[in-house]
Amino acid sequence: MRIIYGINPVSEALKSGGAVTRVLISNVRADKATTAIAELAKTKGVEVVKVPSEELERTAGTPRHQGVAAVLTDPYRYREIDDIIKAWRASGESALILILDSIQDPQNLGSLIRTSVAAGVHGIIIPKDRACEVTPTVVKASAGATEHALIAREVNLSRAIEILKAENIWVAGIEADSKEDIYTADLDRDLALIVGSEGKGIRRLVKENCDFCVSIPMAGKINSLNAAQAGAVALFEARRQRMKPVAKKGK
Amino acid sequence: MRIIYGINPVSEALKSGGAVTRVLISNVRADKATTAIAELAKTKGVEVVKVPSEELERTAGTPRHQGVAAVLTDPYRYREIDDIIKAWRASGESALILILDSIQDPQNLGSLIRTSVAAGVHGIIIPKDRACEVTPTVVKASAGATEHALIAREVNLSRAIEILKAENIWVAGIEADSKEDIYTADLDRDLALIVGSEGKGIRRLVKENCDFCVSIPMAGKINSLNAAQAGAVALFEARRQRMKPVAKKGK
Repeated sequence: MRIIYGINPVSEALKSGGAVTRVLISNVRADKATTAIAELAKTKGVEVVKVPSEELERTAGTPRHQGVAAVLTDPYRYREIDDIIKAWRASGESALILILDSIQDPQNLGSLIRTSVAAGVHGIIIPKDRACEVTPTVVKASAGATEHALIAREVNLSRAIEILKAENIWVAGIEADSKEDIYTADLDRDLALIVGSEGKGIRRLVKENCDFCVSIPMAGKINSLNAAQAGAVALFEARRQRMKPVAKKGK
Repeated sequence: MRIIYGINPVSEALKSGGAVTRVLISNVRADKATTAIAELAKTKGVEVVKVPSEELERTAGTPRHQGVAAVLTDPYRYREIDDIIKAWRASGESALILILDSIQDPQNLGSLIRTSVAAGVHGIIIPKDRACEVTPTVVKASAGATEHALIAREVNLSRAIEILKAENIWVAGIEADSKEDIYTADLDRDLALIVGSEGKGIRRLVKENCDFCVSIPMAGKINSLNAAQAGAVALFEARRQRMKPVAKKGK
């Protein structure tokens, strides 16, 4: 059993045809958003239960539930790297994969997942140990994007990188002070981008496995970005390069 | 008196030559980061006091102080729009200004301030009412960038926009479903970008004052970004366009 909460996460879980077994709605709410969720649940044949706010808070484990929670039968369904590779092959697009090296903060992880889906990545790879996993807080911070993303958890990121390289996917780390930057580098090719953790960046062993590194050129007196912001800027630059109205490489 | 906390904020406040009167460091900390802050404080002639963690937590108002807090004499020093215009004129660059229409979340505000400084904006304009102001949490979330940014608080954003327009600065709202997008629009001109609030976007009256609106083209099943991510992507696209190795317009 898995609990998610918040307007967007519950709504996205219902839309994705996931394993929602029950929707809990606060019995003091009668606003447009919760009413829309109740209707959506009904069209999906999902039971809707009105409960006191205290019960909702207990179920969600937080008061930040926005009046709605959902009970899912399954734990978060992580995928395999193979699923990501299949999704990429099926898309007919150049590969765009995000690798997160040990993001600790659930807000950042949720935000990166949301941004990744909006940027059209084929999948996200996170480490199995010493990193944030997909918790209800992450689902909420992702505004429900976790229900659309293919997320693989790997014990060994270096091995994951080897698998991608064997598929002729280029692996690029986002690192301050790199010779190349995201604007001069060619990001319009089969590519996996690595974002490092908030404090420590990309671990040495992982970095050594990168094909190349790219920086984000900055101005002014602050020369670093939060991991979530750095990921957003780099992913959307990759997306921009792919949108160029020029002849694309065949695959 | 104003309290800030966290390694980066305290360090940036000391570096910016601000009004730091005292630095508090946890008496159980002897790591590199807090030692560096103690040394920096000494070179700036600022008193350093070792205190128990409980006192630090009480002073900071949170346990997330990373072992260090600073006491500043002044409240956060907001600037006037005029200061921002002067800073732009002095820079010799095309204007880049960020207007935030009613950001509520301190993490998002801090993140947007950090990203703005990294992207080289000349200033940030926020509303005086019904919006997050620069609190210690915002300072922390900005990693100290608040100490470098020129932030003006305006009662009336529409009036602020009029002032910018009178300086021949173009005002562009970031809005889903706009005809133009950030990649096709010319962002390499004197420009103020407006980012709307997390849930509601840009208010109608503010939007009506925009010269034009731009969208961020997205892929996949999620078609919106968090305000902080949207701001980061748009600001860095403006920055990218300004970096192009082509002849720049004179001013």
